[in-house]
Amino acid sequence: MKTYINEIKENDQVDSVFLVKEKSSGLTKTGNNYLKLKLGDRSGEMEGRIWTSVEMLSKGFEKDDFVHVKGKAVSFQEHLQLNITHTEKMEEGEVPYADFFPVAEKDIENMFQSLIEIIKQVKNPHLNQLLNLFFEDDSFIKRFKMAPASKWLHHTYLGGLLEHTLSLTQLVLKIVNHYEGLNLDLLFTASILHDLGKIDELSYHRSFDYSDEGRLLGHIVLGIERVEERIGQLPDFPKDLSILLKHLLLSHHGQYSWGSPKRPMTLEAVILHYLDDMDAKINGIQQFLKTQVREGSKWSAYHRRFEQYFYVPALLEEMELSDKIEETKKEEE
Amino acid sequence: MKTYINEIKENDQVDSVFLVKEKSSGLTKTGNNYLKLKLGDRSGEMEGRIWTSVEMLSKGFEKDDFVHVKGKAVSFQEHLQLNITHTEKMEEGEVPYADFFPVAEKDIENMFQSLIEIIKQVKNPHLNQLLNLFFEDDSFIKRFKMAPASKWLHHTYLGGLLEHTLSLTQLVLKIVNHYEGLNLDLLFTASILHDLGKIDELSYHRSFDYSDEGRLLGHIVLGIERVEERIGQLPDFPKDLSILLKHLLLSHHGQYSWGSPKRPMTLEAVILHYLDDMDAKINGIQQFLKTQVREGSKWSAYHRRFEQYFYVPALLEEMELSDKIEETKKEEE
Amino acid sequence: MKTYINEIKENDQVDSVFLVKEKSSGLTKTGNNYLKLKLGDRSGEMEGRIWTSVEMLSKGFEKDDFVHVKGKAVSFQEHLQLNITHTEKMEEGEVPYADFFPVAEKDIENMFQSLIEIIKQVKNPHLNQLLNLFFEDDSFIKRFKMAPASKWLHHTYLGGLLEHTLSLTQLVLKIVNHYEGLNLDLLFTASILHDLGKIDELSYHRSFDYSDEGRLLGHIVLGIERVEERIGQLPDFPKDLSILLKHLLLSHHGQYSWGSPKRPMTLEAVILHYLDDMDAKINGIQQFLKTQVREGSKWSAYHRRFEQYFYVPALLEEMELSDKIEETKKEEE
Amino acid sequence: MKTYINEIKENDQVDSVFLVKEKSSGLTKTGNNYLKLKLGDRSGEMEGRIWTSVEMLSKGFEKDDFVHVKGKAVSFQEHLQLNITHTEKMEEGEVPYADFFPVAEKDIENMFQSLIEIIKQVKNPHLNQLLNLFFEDDSFIKRFKMAPASKWLHHTYLGGLLEHTLSLTQLVLKIVNHYEGLNLDLLFTASILHDLGKIDELSYHRSFDYSDEGRLLGHIVLGIERVEERIGQLPDFPKDLSILLKHLLLSHHGQYSWGSPKRPMTLEAVILHYLDDMDAKINGIQQFLKTQVREGSKWSAYHRRFEQYFYVPALLEEMELSDKIEETKKEEE
Amino acid sequence: MKTYINEIKENDQVDSVFLVKEKSSGLTKTGNNYLKLKLGDRSGEMEGRIWTSVEMLSKGFEKDDFVHVKGKAVSFQEHLQLNITHTEKMEEGEVPYADFFPVAEKDIENMFQSLIEIIKQVKNPHLNQLLNLFFEDDSFIKRFKMAPASKWLHHTYLGGLLEHTLSLTQLVLKIVNHYEGLNLDLLFTASILHDLGKIDELSYHRSFDYSDEGRLLGHIVLGIERVEERIGQLPDFPKDLSILLKHLLLSHHGQYSWGSPKRPMTLEAVILHYLDDMDAKINGIQQFLKTQVREGSKWSAYHRRFEQYFYVPALLEEMELSDKIEETKKEEE
Amino acid sequence: MKTYINEIKENDQVDSVFLVKEKSSGLTKTGNNYLKLKLGDRSGEMEGRIWTSVEMLSKGFEKDDFVHVKGKAVSFQEHLQLNITHTEKMEEGEVPYADFFPVAEKDIENMFQSLIEIIKQVKNPHLNQLLNLFFEDDSFIKRFKMAPASKWLHHTYLGGLLEHTLSLTQLVLKIVNHYEGLNLDLLFTASILHDLGKIDELSYHRSFDYSDEGRLLGHIVLGIERVEERIGQLPDFPKDLSILLKHLLLSHHGQYSWGSPKRPMTLEAVILHYLDDMDAKINGIQQFLKTQVREGSKWSAYHRRFEQYFYVPALLEEMELSDKIEETKKEEE
Repeated sequence: MKTYINEIKENDQVDSVFLVKEKSSGLTKTGNNYLKLKLGDRSGEMEGRIWTSVEMLSKGFEKDDFVHVKGKAVSFQEHLQLNITHTEKMEEGEVPYADFFPVAEKDIENMFQSLIEIIKQVKNPHLNQLLNLFFEDDSFIKRFKMAPASKWLHHTYLGGLLEHTLSLTQLVLKIVNHYEGLNLDLLFTASILHDLGKIDELSYHRSFDYSDEGRLLGHIVLGIERVEERIGQLPDFPKDLSILLKHLLLSHHGQYSWGSPKRPMTLEAVILHYLDDMDAKINGIQQFLKTQVREGSKWSAYHRRFEQYFYVPALLEEMELSDKIEETKKEEE
Repeated sequence: MKTYINEIKENDQVDSVFLVKEKSSGLTKTGNNYLKLKLGDRSGEMEGRIWTSVEMLSKGFEKDDFVHVKGKAVSFQEHLQLNITHTEKMEEGEVPYADFFPVAEKDIENMFQSLIEIIKQVKNPHLNQLLNLFFEDDSFIKRFKMAPASKWLHHTYLGGLLEHTLSLTQLVLKIVNHYEGLNLDLLFTASILHDLGKIDELSYHRSFDYSDEGRLLGHIVLGIERVEERIGQLPDFPKDLSILLKHLLLSHHGQYSWGSPKRPMTLEAVILHYLDDMDAKINGIQQFLKTQVREGSKWSAYHRRFEQYFYVPALLEEMELSDKIEETKKEEE
Repeated sequence: MKTYINEIKENDQVDSVFLVKEKSSGLTKTGNNYLKLKLGDRSGEMEGRIWTSVEMLSKGFEKDDFVHVKGKAVSFQEHLQLNITHTEKMEEGEVPYADFFPVAEKDIENMFQSLIEIIKQVKNPHLNQLLNLFFEDDSFIKRFKMAPASKWLHHTYLGGLLEHTLSLTQLVLKIVNHYEGLNLDLLFTASILHDLGKIDELSYHRSFDYSDEGRLLGHIVLGIERVEERIGQLPDFPKDLSILLKHLLLSHHGQYSWGSPKRPMTLEAVILHYLDDMDAKINGIQQFLKTQVREGSKWSAYHRRFEQYFYVPALLEEMELSDKIEETKKEEE
Repeated sequence: MKTYINEIKENDQVDSVFLVKEKSSGLTKTGNNYLKLKLGDRSGEMEGRIWTSVEMLSKGFEKDDFVHVKGKAVSFQEHLQLNITHTEKMEEGEVPYADFFPVAEKDIENMFQSLIEIIKQVKNPHLNQLLNLFFEDDSFIKRFKMAPASKWLHHTYLGGLLEHTLSLTQLVLKIVNHYEGLNLDLLFTASILHDLGKIDELSYHRSFDYSDEGRLLGHIVLGIERVEERIGQLPDFPKDLSILLKHLLLSHHGQYSWGSPKRPMTLEAVILHYLDDMDAKINGIQQFLKTQVREGSKWSAYHRRFEQYFYVPALLEEMELSDKIEETKKEEE
Repeated sequence: MKTYINEIKENDQVDSVFLVKEKSSGLTKTGNNYLKLKLGDRSGEMEGRIWTSVEMLSKGFEKDDFVHVKGKAVSFQEHLQLNITHTEKMEEGEVPYADFFPVAEKDIENMFQSLIEIIKQVKNPHLNQLLNLFFEDDSFIKRFKMAPASKWLHHTYLGGLLEHTLSLTQLVLKIVNHYEGLNLDLLFTASILHDLGKIDELSYHRSFDYSDEGRLLGHIVLGIERVEERIGQLPDFPKDLSILLKHLLLSHHGQYSWGSPKRPMTLEAVILHYLDDMDAKINGIQQFLKTQVREGSKWSAYHRRFEQYFYVPALLEEMELSDKIEETKKEEE
Repeated sequence: MKTYINEIKENDQVDSVFLVKEKSSGLTKTGNNYLKLKLGDRSGEMEGRIWTSVEMLSKGFEKDDFVHVKGKAVSFQEHLQLNITHTEKMEEGEVPYADFFPVAEKDIENMFQSLIEIIKQVKNPHLNQLLNLFFEDDSFIKRFKMAPASKWLHHTYLGGLLEHTLSLTQLVLKIVNHYEGLNLDLLFTASILHDLGKIDELSYHRSFDYSDEGRLLGHIVLGIERVEERIGQLPDFPKDLSILLKHLLLSHHGQYSWGSPKRPMTLEAVILHYLDDMDAKINGIQQFLKTQVREGSKWSAYHRRFEQYFYVPALLEEMELSDKIEETKKEEE
């Protein structure tokens, strides 16, 4: 069973799998070689040292490998450090990703099924076929379920792209009949595909970062390319519909300064932009508040990207929230 | 029965009530006095002239009065002009406003009842009392039902403030359970009161314009003052709740540059800002498209405030829209 | 032979082909039908009237057709107007475009050959193949030779895209060895393809305007799609090279606010952006100065897009320019 | 008598009152409890330790209390630390605030009297009454005298709000006759009340910080509310005058981006904005220069908010300044 | 005696001097030559025609000459037009400029003497000498007295530069002792010289416009050049003082975006910027209000440069202004 | 021979010249005086200590002197420190600057000769004379050859100003015939003189920093002053030409926000701005990439001024670059 780094205490005997984040060798004062490791899992990082049988224990694994280690946690200069006496490299398939990376709290399979249900409701045959080309492709599905939605701002965990996509699509579903004259199928399709390019923009194999093509081209263009490629496989896909769909994808950031090469020019594009921006921001704030509000404080730390503080009034909890939610749930039935 | 200006044709005998928008006197080439009027109703404006009995017919009314006139429509320099032979000032009570100003297409009483129903669901006793102080005050109700929501951009018609307030509150209702941990009563109350100050900001007695206090103080501050005054009548209203509510009102424009002295700092304030902005923009575009798309074109005229064109694809209408709406309606039951 | 509108004088008998820009019918004071036309060619526009045999002469052509007309130029309210007595619709193939639209002063075939010569120097086999896929495709070549480079700002004439592309590529050729470590083939290829999407962004069939996909997607994305499609035909094209090339195309506007979804991140991308921007601006100013400097003035009219005046010092002409050009030409040999 | 922290030297016996800024317990290597305190006064902070009679000495005071302590200053790891042998909590009234917070250099009572003198000159009976409502309210006066004018930028000390208000009002007094047609009473009243809301915006009980309502509503709106409340007590106060006064308060930051929901629209509002901004900036620079210019340097450190360096030329001091001041003083008599 | 254009009525015999703003020839329907003039003075412009003795009356004057004309005012197409029967060119010295251009309301000589008095108080010998170099130079004085301060925004009349310079210097005089540690001589000198370059930037010989060097270099740099030239004539002028003075001149616009290549870095520079900006803006608004407030309105027209409306409350006049001014005057004695 | 700081190892006997960057005295625990030095050369900095004969060895040199020291490198708290036993001050002439500051990689004399060759080609006698006034002045030449071009961004080494000036002028030479109608002599002269003021703006005697006049006036104005002074020595220099030249110098930053008080208004000014900006940016990126790309990475560190990352594709090196350079070189012959 996994032992998490933030649970390890002085003098514990540790026997678990960690990700090797750094690996280098050092020299003791007496002139002997030793090995310095930085070990990580989703709960944090700690130093590891191999003082004996250095050569033998160092073989067989490299930086970025998952390694099964055994050893004892000792305290050195006020920090814990693992003195390692056993190492064994693990194959990637043997290791549950969720032990090593933050992962969505909601169940990924459930979310995926909910999204599939919505897709089934898209009646326009061209858009329906297009969505199916994506969501019947196992390799795509695997990446789509795993990807985070962002490196920094919102849904920054495995499954985050799926969670954000589903959340946005559900918002669209709730709001879409509020206004007249909207093309529902177009809106659903665009909301499902809008951040598609993030499966290529972000790399999340060992840590969340931008891929080269992510930095150089960006998820908007990467997504357009994937959609264009699939549309190319549907010879009857109408040109006008293709342009409209791509316009929604291109313009969903809403402004040039946020990386959209076009601003929204149709009602559907305007709505997609607002709901996407709102969903990302709400999730971003909620994630931030989880770790960035000191106990006893009603104010968060300063959020650098949003350039402001957020307020978490105690009041909210006290005002018999539960009653009211029931109430409003009923009224919707 | 009202004869509308845009229905008048050359040589018509006209007998109807108009608003006098300008009144001045002129001199014919032969040195006789005549009276120049600009007449208006909700359908447009036209020139009026009094050539005979000038002194007598000119008495009894001024600019900005409603006047019952009789006369004949003649053509002068390619424009129609009314040669007036009878004038009679009308009292304000005798005249239906909707003949003279654009008015919401939706029924005002129906919209108002829908809003009252939502207000009843606000369970927090302080917020409920506060809302009742407003919505049991007939003088307030009368102005609230009449006011437009904006001079330029969106819901620019009598009843527009009510329509926008209801639409926003319904959006809140639809979305509010999508996210956890929101204070629903606070959100409903803020959405109902958010543009309150517009009943003072805009004057819509004779034409839509800003009042002096509207220009000098703005609807955000005017609304805060009205809310603060009512809260002063509720001695037990919690200070914290009052600050939170006013924060939502203050920050609902979202940015300094849009006239909000504070940016949204709570989840509720963030959501209120996005939905308000979206609702105003969607209505603004829809209104604009009604008059600013030339027949046969898929592109609107250039929208100066939004600094862009909008696109109205024929496609939207062709894609069997009706089927789909049924479908999605069912799924919500 | 073409008679240009700006050459027509009162009482001239006109016998030439014009583009019909507007067509509508009117009613004379005596109640007879007549036909109103707006005729155009590259030199300007004039009114046309058909007073007799209206029905017969009106048949067979519509707005946006090229029509051979005969008639007499008469003066009406200080403007010339053509009283037409003969009409005959022309097929598009029969009409030289250059009579009706502004066209590059430089010879299009010569410019095209110069560009082909530069393409031949691209040695990287992948980039070379990619360029050949474009420049051996007659349908592409035809559009590429014809397209203007912009609706408003620079090279706003038939052949303008080619002229700008060649000019930029020649600038690259001159400068590229000035700095060390640049990938020349990449720079040449990107400069040749950088505005490719403009053949789809602009429509220039009857007047210069944006196409629907031009407005909704923009030439940057349209160009990327064309390049991506061609690269798809080259199975061995390296992924890295493809990303780099597309990065140069995406980022050539240099800034988000100018519609680039990415800013230049490589030395080649930085150079491409500067030279493209400079070439467009210099041509834009030169075109502007041709018509927007009043005789005797050293100052141009106000340029709205650039938000400034330009200065054309007489001094420049007086300072024996010719001598110096010879001089500097020599030194380059 | 107060012993200031920055005067304490190694081995001093200290017997004085300090503010307890942090209080927590620790464990010695031998397993005994001890108490860790952070002590503060206006001159700085230092560590305090209670090693013996820990339980007894720890009782009776908490974080944010003023405590009379006795103990000996010892050096630990190059820092002084107070080994405490006696503690006694002080009541707030017993403690002079000025020992613990930076305080205006100018005498607060003198400044207040000067302001009262100016208030007496306001002849408009409504404005005069309004000012009196504030300046005859002891509770208000107490807070107004104590409040700083800003957390970061200018007059960041007790009495700073009063000092800035007086300074601005004196500037108004000096300049107001320079221009014709100004409403002097309005300008005086607005300058006296312009930053009123800062007594609610900032909390300065234990440290300078924003209050919840300060962050959520801001001093501009808080001030408006206080003024509106007082005007409500004056039934004859003219509506127009009230709007004008509130406009000056609302717009005194001058720009949306600086948190004013309205820009100045009257001559008085324009002047108030300029003089307020100038006075705040000059004081801000002067305060900054006191601590942020290294000896021997003519350049200040980088000012982050103003995003620049300031220059303090030696020259200024050398140029017989005193003579000149006499001179110009004379000329004003 | 001068007859002003806005006083001329139909059928008047006119005998006065005007500025010829345009001069061209036309052809009557009967084929005769006539001369078209545009005549101007400070009150407006009107058309002039010479129908007879055209050749003789046309000789001897050109565009931009002052010409004594005689003729009769007739009405043509609703406009007055002068049928001229006599022309005589005037020498420039014979013509009072103030008849032809707007001129400061305050007496130019009085203002100049007031400025000279302030200059005398500058005790620093270097700065005093520098000022004297300018203000003992008759050619400079003549231009300095005549120049407007701006083409568009403020003090846009002959004598405007002097008026603004004096006003700013008087503001400096009033405020300068309010703050400690300012170098008064430096501030006075900079305020007197700050807009010096405007005598070169603006041409105001026939109309207010920018000179070539004004547009190409700007008054800030032109002023620096004039100051630098004079300092070059004072061999003992301290380098440090010269840099400081020039810094105040360079930075007085306060921001890069307003054309200052440096932002204010000393207290004196900060104050100069604020007072200059305030004085220009107040005068700009006052000038604007004189012509841009419709009778009966409390709101000005929209001010394009300032991008806002201004408010002129009736209230101001009613509140016994005169009493109060007396009051505050006394208190200053 | 120079021993560089980054070559010194523990226990080395050091005997070399260093720049004394800091000098202060300390007290050992036993109460003895010692001297603390910070020593520097172009390779880095290290601590120096004088423990014995302190008084004698401390005499004769101060901070900012070059001093010949002898001593032994010892390790103290993981850092090397020089225990000094001999000191001797060096005269400035005895010390090669390049040992202490970064210096251009290209040969300074060669670059200077190349620039002189270009100057000879300027045929306009006035501009030629002006350039000669500068480039025949030994004192100017010495400073011009030594100065860096910037403190932070580009060409930040001795000789950098010369290198950037030559590079820009060569770019001008390559491009200038690409466009018609340019005044070549004006462009060459402006490119040679454009950053002239940097010899006064930056001080680079002991470290690269801004001089007082650099910060207060900036290199643009300082350069204008130097040019104006020289033009004053050429009585026949045409006024128009002087204005044009100065306009190019003033506007070469291109935008107000980059410190240009005027934007480019002539074709030459536009070109100068683009090429200058490009050359500075390319050099800035190239310098940055030399130190700010971690081994094995294709991405640079984040560039704070440019606010982005840069990409260094391995690809570039692999694609037989050498062949192609030959190729393109040939083609230019």
